[in-house]
Amino acid sequence: MTDSQNKAHLDADINRQALDFHALPRPGKIGTEITKPAATQHDLSLAYTPGVAEPVRQIHADPDLAYSYTNKGNLVAVITDGTAVLGLGNVGGLAGKPVMEGKAVLFKRFAGIDCFDIEVDAESPQAFIETVARIAPTFGGINLEDIAAPHCFEIEQALIEQLDIPVFHDDQHGTAIIIAAGLLNGLELQGKTLADARIVVLGAGAAGIASVRLLLALGAQRNNIFCVDRQGIIHLGRQDLNPYKFGVAVETEKRTLAEAMEGADVFIGVSGPDLVAPEMVAAMAPRPIVFALSNPVPEIRPAAALAVRDDLVMATGRSDYPNQINNVLGFPFIFRGALDVRASRINEAMQIAAVEALRALAREPVPAEVLEAYGLKELSFGPDYIIPKPFDPRLRERVPAAVARAAIDSGVARLPADH
Amino acid sequence: MTDSQNKAHLDADINRQALDFHALPRPGKIGTEITKPAATQHDLSLAYTPGVAEPVRQIHADPDLAYSYTNKGNLVAVITDGTAVLGLGNVGGLAGKPVMEGKAVLFKRFAGIDCFDIEVDAESPQAFIETVARIAPTFGGINLEDIAAPHCFEIEQALIEQLDIPVFHDDQHGTAIIIAAGLLNGLELQGKTLADARIVVLGAGAAGIASVRLLLALGAQRNNIFCVDRQGIIHLGRQDLNPYKFGVAVETEKRTLAEAMEGADVFIGVSGPDLVAPEMVAAMAPRPIVFALSNPVPEIRPAAALAVRDDLVMATGRSDYPNQINNVLGFPFIFRGALDVRASRINEAMQIAAVEALRALAREPVPAEVLEAYGLKELSFGPDYIIPKPFDPRLRERVPAAVARAAIDSGVARLPADH
Repeated sequence: MTDSQNKAHLDADINRQALDFHALPRPGKIGTEITKPAATQHDLSLAYTPGVAEPVRQIHADPDLAYSYTNKGNLVAVITDGTAVLGLGNVGGLAGKPVMEGKAVLFKRFAGIDCFDIEVDAESPQAFIETVARIAPTFGGINLEDIAAPHCFEIEQALIEQLDIPVFHDDQHGTAIIIAAGLLNGLELQGKTLADARIVVLGAGAAGIASVRLLLALGAQRNNIFCVDRQGIIHLGRQDLNPYKFGVAVETEKRTLAEAMEGADVFIGVSGPDLVAPEMVAAMAPRPIVFALSNPVPEIRPAAALAVRDDLVMATGRSDYPNQINNVLGFPFIFRGALDVRASRINEAMQIAAVEALRALAREPVPAEVLEAYGLKELSFGPDYIIPKPFDPRLRERVPAAVARAAIDSGVARLPADH
Repeated sequence: MTDSQNKAHLDADINRQALDFHALPRPGKIGTEITKPAATQHDLSLAYTPGVAEPVRQIHADPDLAYSYTNKGNLVAVITDGTAVLGLGNVGGLAGKPVMEGKAVLFKRFAGIDCFDIEVDAESPQAFIETVARIAPTFGGINLEDIAAPHCFEIEQALIEQLDIPVFHDDQHGTAIIIAAGLLNGLELQGKTLADARIVVLGAGAAGIASVRLLLALGAQRNNIFCVDRQGIIHLGRQDLNPYKFGVAVETEKRTLAEAMEGADVFIGVSGPDLVAPEMVAAMAPRPIVFALSNPVPEIRPAAALAVRDDLVMATGRSDYPNQINNVLGFPFIFRGALDVRASRINEAMQIAAVEALRALAREPVPAEVLEAYGLKELSFGPDYIIPKPFDPRLRERVPAAVARAAIDSGVARLPADH
C-alpha cells in the first residue's frame, strides 16, 4: 500500500471504531448519576417533596446558598451554536453534540466537574447570547465551544459582562494558554525571549486572535507579531478587517506568509492542513520554533520540517508526535480552580497563572506512572518535552491551585482557597 | 406538646435533615457520569478528537443519527422558569433548582432516564418559549415544571407545536393522569361511573385545568364538572375568565364551593391547605370520593373527612396516608415509553394509556417485595388501595409499554416497539 492508501485505511478503521464506541452498547458516552441516597421513601422525601421545600426557601432568601444545596457550584455547561465544529465548519448544534458530550467526558475525567452539554439552535449571535444568559442560573460556569469567529468574541464578551459566573471560550483562551506555556518553554530552550521573538501566527480565528492577545499580555512586542489570514499578513493598510483582526494588525510592507516567515523565530499555526512549505521553515531565524497545530493534519508535518532544519523545536496538536498542544491540559483544571474559589470570571491573571503552572510542571522530573501511561522509558524537559502530558496526575494538583490563587489575588474569588 | 407544636417540631426536623441531605458531604444530589471507557489515550481518541469527527459527520448528514451516537435519546430536560415552585410561588429559577434536581433524581431512579435540570431566567413567556426551543436539539424530551398558570398552557402548546420531541408539563398532565387513574378505580369501588359522576375540581391552575380536560376526554360530562377558583365556581357568567378558565366554565346558578359540593360525587382538590370544611364533605352524595391533594397540608385532612362520612374513598398527596396521588407514578414511565419508541409528542392517547395501565396495576395482587418496601402485611384493591405504590417495580414494565404501544397506534412513534 502507498502511504496515502495506508492512511485511508487507518482513518476508516478509527472512524469505524469511533462509531462503535459512540453507539454500543448504548448511544452516547455521558449520562447522569444520583449522588445521594435514593433507595427508600425516606430518602426521596428528602431529595424531593416535602424535604426539598426547605432548600428552596433558603436559596430564595439567599441566592448564594444554591452553591450549598445544589450542584450548581460543580456544574459547567459546554455550550455551542455549532457554527465551527472541529474543522468541519457550521454543521449546527445537533451535529456538534458528540463533541460537546466528549468535552463533558473530559471535564469529568480530568477534574471531577459535572458537565451538561447544550446545543443551541440560534438564529443570530444575539439570540445565542440571550439564550445562554437565560439558562445561566443553572450553572457554576460556562464553557463556550466551537463558535465561529468573529462572533465568538462578541458573544463571549457580552456573556462575561452579563453573568456573575465564569464564561470561557475554550477555543480562544484554552488554546492560547497551552500554546503560551509550550512556547515560553520552547523559547527558553532555544535561548530566546518572548520580548524579542519575531512571531508568525497563521489563522486569525478564535485561537489565533486569542493567542496574539495572550502573548502580548505575556510580553511579546506588538510589532513583532505577524498575524496571517487567507488574504496574507494582517496589516494596517487592509480595508477588509473586522475589529478583532484590526486589533492585531501591524504596520509593514510585507504581505505574504512566506515573507512573514523570513527570519521569524516562532511560527504558530492554528489554521489548516499543509499550508506551510518546507522552504518557509528553512527561511526562519536560527533555532526556530514551529507549532503546527492544525488537526489532524498539521500546517507542516514534523518530518518535512525537521528535514530542512535540525535546530528546530516543534509541536503539533497530535498525540503521535512529541509536544502535543492539547486543550485538555487547560480547561478542566482552569475551571476546577475557578469553581473551587467560586470565581466570578476567568480573568487574564488566572489565564497567566495557568500558563505558568503548565510551564513549570514540564520542567520537573516526570513520575514513573506518567512514563508508564505513555510507554516511555525516559522523558525530561527538552526539545521533545516542552509541555506536560495529559495523563499527568500532577496537573490536577498544580493548575487548579495556581488558578484559584490568582483568582483570589486578583479579587474575583468569592471564597477563600481553603474554604 | 400540642398537635401543632408536635408538627412544628417534626417540620423543623425534616427541614434540618433535608438541608443536611442537600449539603453533605457535597452540595446537590445529581451529577454526570461517564458511560464509556475513558481510561486511556486510545479511549479518549475515540470519545473526543480525532474519533469524534466521524459521528459529527454522520449526524450532519442524517440528524436522526444523533439518537445512535449521542445520549439525546435517553436525555430529558426538566425546565422551569421558577414561577410556581411547589407551593412557594414565583421564587425564580435558581431557587427552584433543588426541585428540578430532585425531579432529575426521580427520572433516573425510576426509569433510568438521564436528566438535565435547566433553570431559566426569562423576562416573559415568549422569552421562555424561545429559550427552550433553542436548546431543544440537546434533548430527547422536555419536562416543563413549576410554571405558573395561565402562562404554562400557552408555553406548552407553543413548544409542542415547534418541536419534534415530547414536551410535557408534568404539573398539568402528570397530575391529571394519576388523578384519573385513582378516580376511575375509586368510582368503580363506589359503584359509580365517570359519565354520571358530579365532580368538583377546586383549583384552576395547571393541575386543575388539565384534570378537567383529561376527565372530559375519559367520558365525564361537561355540565357535571364544577371547577372552582378563589372567586368561586367558574361559570359562564363571569367576566374575569382567561381562555383556559373559560374553557371549563359551565352554565349554573350555583356560585360557591359549598354549593358545588352539595350532592357531588367527587371532590378533587389541587389548591391549598384546609379549604374544605367537614360540612361540605357531609353534604356530598352517598359514597363520595375526596381527593385532597394540596401538599403537604390537604384541603381537608383524612381524619376530619372520615369523621363525617364512613362511606368515603379518600386520597391525598402525602405518603403517610393511604392512596397517595404522586406524580412519580407517571412522568418517569410516560417519558420512558415515549423515548423507547422515539415518539414526537406525548398525545392524549398516550396519556390515557398511562391512566389505564396505572388503573389496571392497582387491581392486581401486590407482590411481596412491595409489601416489604412499605412495611405492610397486606394490601389489595379497595378503598385504601386505589392506585399503585411508587416503589412497585411493575410500574416500569407496565406503564412504558402501554405508553409506547399507544404512541405507535396513534402514529407518533418513530421507532417500532421492538427496535
